[in-house]
Amino acid sequence: MGNVDKSDYSNEHVAYTPPPLTPEEEKELEKMYAEMDALHMKPLWNQIGGLMPNAPTPQAVAHKWEWEKIHALAARSGDLVPVGRGGERRAIGLANPGLGGPTYIAPTLWAAIQYLAPGENAPEHRHSQNAFRFVIEGEGVWTVVNGDAVPMKRGDFLITPGWAFHGHHNIATKPMAWLDGLDIPFAYQMDTGFFEYGSEKLTDESTPEHSRSERLWAHPGLRPLAFPGAHSSSPIGRYAWEHTDAALNDQLSLEDAGFPGVVAPGHAAVRFTNPSTGNDVMTTIRAEFHRLRPGAETTPIHEVGNRVFQVFEGSATINIGDETFEVKHGDVVNVPSWQKWSVGAGSEGVDLFCFSDHPIFEALGLNRTFTPEGI
Amino acid sequence: MGNVDKSDYSNEHVAYTPPPLTPEEEKELEKMYAEMDALHMKPLWNQIGGLMPNAPTPQAVAHKWEWEKIHALAARSGDLVPVGRGGERRAIGLANPGLGGPTYIAPTLWAAIQYLAPGENAPEHRHSQNAFRFVIEGEGVWTVVNGDAVPMKRGDFLITPGWAFHGHHNIATKPMAWLDGLDIPFAYQMDTGFFEYGSEKLTDESTPEHSRSERLWAHPGLRPLAFPGAHSSSPIGRYAWEHTDAALNDQLSLEDAGFPGVVAPGHAAVRFTNPSTGNDVMTTIRAEFHRLRPGAETTPIHEVGNRVFQVFEGSATINIGDETFEVKHGDVVNVPSWQKWSVGAGSEGVDLFCFSDHPIFEALGLNRTFTPEGI
Amino acid sequence: MGNVDKSDYSNEHVAYTPPPLTPEEEKELEKMYAEMDALHMKPLWNQIGGLMPNAPTPQAVAHKWEWEKIHALAARSGDLVPVGRGGERRAIGLANPGLGGPTYIAPTLWAAIQYLAPGENAPEHRHSQNAFRFVIEGEGVWTVVNGDAVPMKRGDFLITPGWAFHGHHNIATKPMAWLDGLDIPFAYQMDTGFFEYGSEKLTDESTPEHSRSERLWAHPGLRPLAFPGAHSSSPIGRYAWEHTDAALNDQLSLEDAGFPGVVAPGHAAVRFTNPSTGNDVMTTIRAEFHRLRPGAETTPIHEVGNRVFQVFEGSATINIGDETFEVKHGDVVNVPSWQKWSVGAGSEGVDLFCFSDHPIFEALGLNRTFTPEGI
Amino acid sequence: MGNVDKSDYSNEHVAYTPPPLTPEEEKELEKMYAEMDALHMKPLWNQIGGLMPNAPTPQAVAHKWEWEKIHALAARSGDLVPVGRGGERRAIGLANPGLGGPTYIAPTLWAAIQYLAPGENAPEHRHSQNAFRFVIEGEGVWTVVNGDAVPMKRGDFLITPGWAFHGHHNIATKPMAWLDGLDIPFAYQMDTGFFEYGSEKLTDESTPEHSRSERLWAHPGLRPLAFPGAHSSSPIGRYAWEHTDAALNDQLSLEDAGFPGVVAPGHAAVRFTNPSTGNDVMTTIRAEFHRLRPGAETTPIHEVGNRVFQVFEGSATINIGDETFEVKHGDVVNVPSWQKWSVGAGSEGVDLFCFSDHPIFEALGLNRTFTPEGI
Repeated sequence: MGNVDKSDYSNEHVAYTPPPLTPEEEKELEKMYAEMDALHMKPLWNQIGGLMPNAPTPQAVAHKWEWEKIHALAARSGDLVPVGRGGERRAIGLANPGLGGPTYIAPTLWAAIQYLAPGENAPEHRHSQNAFRFVIEGEGVWTVVNGDAVPMKRGDFLITPGWAFHGHHNIATKPMAWLDGLDIPFAYQMDTGFFEYGSEKLTDESTPEHSRSERLWAHPGLRPLAFPGAHSSSPIGRYAWEHTDAALNDQLSLEDAGFPGVVAPGHAAVRFTNPSTGNDVMTTIRAEFHRLRPGAETTPIHEVGNRVFQVFEGSATINIGDETFEVKHGDVVNVPSWQKWSVGAGSEGVDLFCFSDHPIFEALGLNRTFTPEGI
Repeated sequence: MGNVDKSDYSNEHVAYTPPPLTPEEEKELEKMYAEMDALHMKPLWNQIGGLMPNAPTPQAVAHKWEWEKIHALAARSGDLVPVGRGGERRAIGLANPGLGGPTYIAPTLWAAIQYLAPGENAPEHRHSQNAFRFVIEGEGVWTVVNGDAVPMKRGDFLITPGWAFHGHHNIATKPMAWLDGLDIPFAYQMDTGFFEYGSEKLTDESTPEHSRSERLWAHPGLRPLAFPGAHSSSPIGRYAWEHTDAALNDQLSLEDAGFPGVVAPGHAAVRFTNPSTGNDVMTTIRAEFHRLRPGAETTPIHEVGNRVFQVFEGSATINIGDETFEVKHGDVVNVPSWQKWSVGAGSEGVDLFCFSDHPIFEALGLNRTFTPEGI
Repeated sequence: MGNVDKSDYSNEHVAYTPPPLTPEEEKELEKMYAEMDALHMKPLWNQIGGLMPNAPTPQAVAHKWEWEKIHALAARSGDLVPVGRGGERRAIGLANPGLGGPTYIAPTLWAAIQYLAPGENAPEHRHSQNAFRFVIEGEGVWTVVNGDAVPMKRGDFLITPGWAFHGHHNIATKPMAWLDGLDIPFAYQMDTGFFEYGSEKLTDESTPEHSRSERLWAHPGLRPLAFPGAHSSSPIGRYAWEHTDAALNDQLSLEDAGFPGVVAPGHAAVRFTNPSTGNDVMTTIRAEFHRLRPGAETTPIHEVGNRVFQVFEGSATINIGDETFEVKHGDVVNVPSWQKWSVGAGSEGVDLFCFSDHPIFEALGLNRTFTPEGI
Repeated sequence: MGNVDKSDYSNEHVAYTPPPLTPEEEKELEKMYAEMDALHMKPLWNQIGGLMPNAPTPQAVAHKWEWEKIHALAARSGDLVPVGRGGERRAIGLANPGLGGPTYIAPTLWAAIQYLAPGENAPEHRHSQNAFRFVIEGEGVWTVVNGDAVPMKRGDFLITPGWAFHGHHNIATKPMAWLDGLDIPFAYQMDTGFFEYGSEKLTDESTPEHSRSERLWAHPGLRPLAFPGAHSSSPIGRYAWEHTDAALNDQLSLEDAGFPGVVAPGHAAVRFTNPSTGNDVMTTIRAEFHRLRPGAETTPIHEVGNRVFQVFEGSATINIGDETFEVKHGDVVNVPSWQKWSVGAGSEGVDLFCFSDHPIFEALGLNRTFTPEGI
């Protein structure tokens, strides 16, 4: 719906005021409500304020997970919990404190730290849920996606689109941890998820420097004739850090030279895209990388949908609603729907990985933004 | 993802078997789980079977609401509960018994019976949630959508796309009840909902035979030059019964003459569409009308997504999973995601209105079907 | 490219001025040009002004064909020229006086008057060229398109999309003449045309009141479930006059009531569309019907692409460039690309059928308009 | 229309046989034809065979232009013809011998050799015609497109989308020649062309190693957030040879390793695409680069539309219809619509640049292919 004016952003609802009733009418009413209950019916007039608020009132809350702490726990689980069929992955989900039981960082999104020790294998499986990995540090793991061995190195962004078989193994001498992102909560709540086991052993144990997907598709503006048409998910399995870094540097150098390029002053940003369409890498998940110069600040904005940030390098202050989060390398912070947010870079600037569920709402025409200070 | 083979449709998951641990290790593990809990983390290995089942395991259950009973209760509420600002509508939601507290007929969809007595007005408001009405019987109500007075008569299907102001009034001498359908649960769980009050009084109190939207857009294959481009929701506010009925009759007469037209033997069906795109009337809700000849049966099918049926005329048997529902005029039945379903028409045949959330999953490439008996 | 400012609409080009040359250089130059010629090369600098004018300089000219005269000649050909295999159709093309030899009304479009006497059959064939017919008067002919017998009556617009087999027969007691429109010149110049003979006798000799295509698809906003997806051409074979007439009347009555609907004051207009997409009926041809109240005038406009008008009822003045054409029932007038045009209705108003090649240029992003007086 | 069976590919037409006429009738007929002529009418029955052939019968013929010869002539024109306003460019068009007067290599396409001596400037202008340049050899020229200085080096493919201002200058010590491709004939015949002068001097005289367009957009799978949406033409101004070369090598190495990648055995190929959509670089022109291993051959195919090849390195035999062309570095050969063609690589293999008008026909659903030997 695009940007909206301020009048749309109030959060008040007139409470339903039942009319004055005689004691008998009161009794009748209660009896009627009981009968409705027995018939699995429930009146709108008693619940409309909660069910249809003037603006989104997410149960999810903004929260920060500190990398040092979650990484330490992941390492401990490496000693105590094996990786293998059944549990499938040594992945520890980040559970939004506002969402109660389930391990959802947002109503649509799952984020987890995954940990793989030297020599370990995570067996192959596939699921209709879309997945990606972002490598905050380290190297030595290859993820095998539909038989294509994809290296995972610091700064890389990797995707495993829904229904692609995949497993991982660590061939290095050190353990490795990374961020996993999936649309598990969306699939679970919407009842769209399918899951299937694959090979116990990885179907390709080679350790190439580049995945086959990169060799076919990661050449700028060029597509292989052998694979025509629009692919629903990106055919690029790995977005190597060197390209992301170069693209961001180029934007900042264009800004230095006085040319368009950055999304806002001091703020370079790229979106990871599907080269066969120019759209998001997967239908339910958007992924971006932002680089802010020291001291740069983003414009506060309300958006329908959820964002999750992970700091790659540097430090920043992330403001969400009335809260302020100081973040550094590896820290993860989520922004619930329609909470005003902004980022201010620390004294060395900040490199921020970010993913969101915005493509879901754009596909359905439900996206909306509001910038209280104008743009 | 289209149709899938049977191997995809099993529902077993290997349970995660923790390794044998020493008592000390066991203690360590418990301590670690507690620390994770304190940090708002939760391991995947303990929950993957529930969270990522082999095929959807909806909490929603199939259920039937009998028109006679829900209509009787709606009528009683007409005596006890006024319609006005705050409660907004005399609408009583059908609450899926499997979904606990909230009034959801499905994780994405709301269905309610709305009741308006002679002379009553439901005040104007708007919300980002998409809405429609299907008129099972009666007439005399006009719904005013963005200032356009739309008549509601037996068999009509009417839409109120998100963010359109709307109110209703009954100018007849009898009360009128109809089925409301919205994507309230989707908006609520996804935190996309906005709501705003409009005029207390209806902005147009005229009672034309056809809405302006019909006069502009309900001419087959013709579009007004004054409104170019693709509209995100259908510009037709009312799909009058006479057209639906004629389209279904035409399909059956083509079948009688040996020509293509019906979707399956003895089974005519139309989809309500947006004439500016040929797509569904709204981005989140699909609506169809099915007419089965006496004794005709549909092929059992599993589908991702939820359907809700309401019988318009005649009678039918609806099979869902292992259950069987006998339905007649006005009865409402829902089919949860991936539950096998089929309909068999009774001895006079059946006219069935149907709505679903399928467009959501098609837009995201998450749709999937399976016909155990083949097609 | 949308609307452009006036600065884009000038038509001057600086002529190439060769430098002063010595007689020897002159000789050298001529020798070089001759060698180029021998090698099938031609310098741009000598021809750029003509080849790349500042704005389109069509060879086609605006022209009027009077119905009385072309109809009289068509009738005479009915006595002298039989219809049958080889010649295929008793169709007489309207040849733009500016386009020299070939029978093109425009560089992209063919228009012809076709004439069929009582009892005559035009045998079946198919071609990749898209075709339509507009019935200026009369009835009694059925066109059979892919085996579907489609009635042709006064005011009807009928399509025969590329590669559909089709033939016609006249079962009435009077001859019938109508306007044929095709993209023959485009196919010929672009080398895209294919042609194939079909049945000598019509494959369906029935004379139903409605074609099967109408019974399936000509119900407003409803589509048959049996034929999913986007069809490249409209699945409606016949746009019956009663619907066109009603749609135009509805727009004018909305204008009378003070509501949006007409494209401009006193000017109602509909586009014939493909109900499966909301787009034009065929990829290369747009068709519209315009109704102007007595005295109403359209805003002068320049457009990339060609239009052809045929007056259905009433009379009008059509201004094209510096010319003025007085037109009445059946008269045909064409507007070459980028020639400023406007229509003014006569004292009884005017009903105008119109077709154009605009979809070609819109598909390629080559459309452009300019309204000298603003809009 | 996709691939078709052989029955569609015949080229016979039954000639129209006029009926036996009496001398008087004959006279009548001639009189009628004369009257038609006077009224600018022309019967279809006399011309249908030529106008609507069974398959395309292009007037364009296959032809080879030898680089050595056309380059030598271009060099001579460098001595005799200055570059400047009016003539605009020292470009010499390749005129298809079958197309008579105008300098068209195909009914839709223009191809020219452009030549710029050291120190020369081609002044800025813009036109709605789409343009590209392919650099067969040399370096030292920068083309300035909408103020962005774009280097031109051996193997580079560069685009100048319609309506972008552009000029060129040569800052090297040697002259430079390259291939220009435009849709001038399409624009001319369709009357869609606009042209405007720009700055006499280049608006940016810098000589950067990479254009700004590359720094923004030529990072694989990454797009700058500052430029959202689908761009109608590619935002990449220069497709540098190093990327094209690497992509082709990667395909062949994947073939060596037994993996998918090449379009056919021994045949690597990439398409230059618009990264914001995955589609062709411009709406009317497709560009590709093909690399065939020594001795590799392509499958003979008929296609609607025109191709032009230029050999970059190596040698090949190009078969078109019944003709055979031996080609080496720089030679240009065109394939008319629907002429069967194939390429066989010479003993060192061949690198082939190729452009075509196929996107025009795909956009309109007029594309069609036929492989006589199957695929």
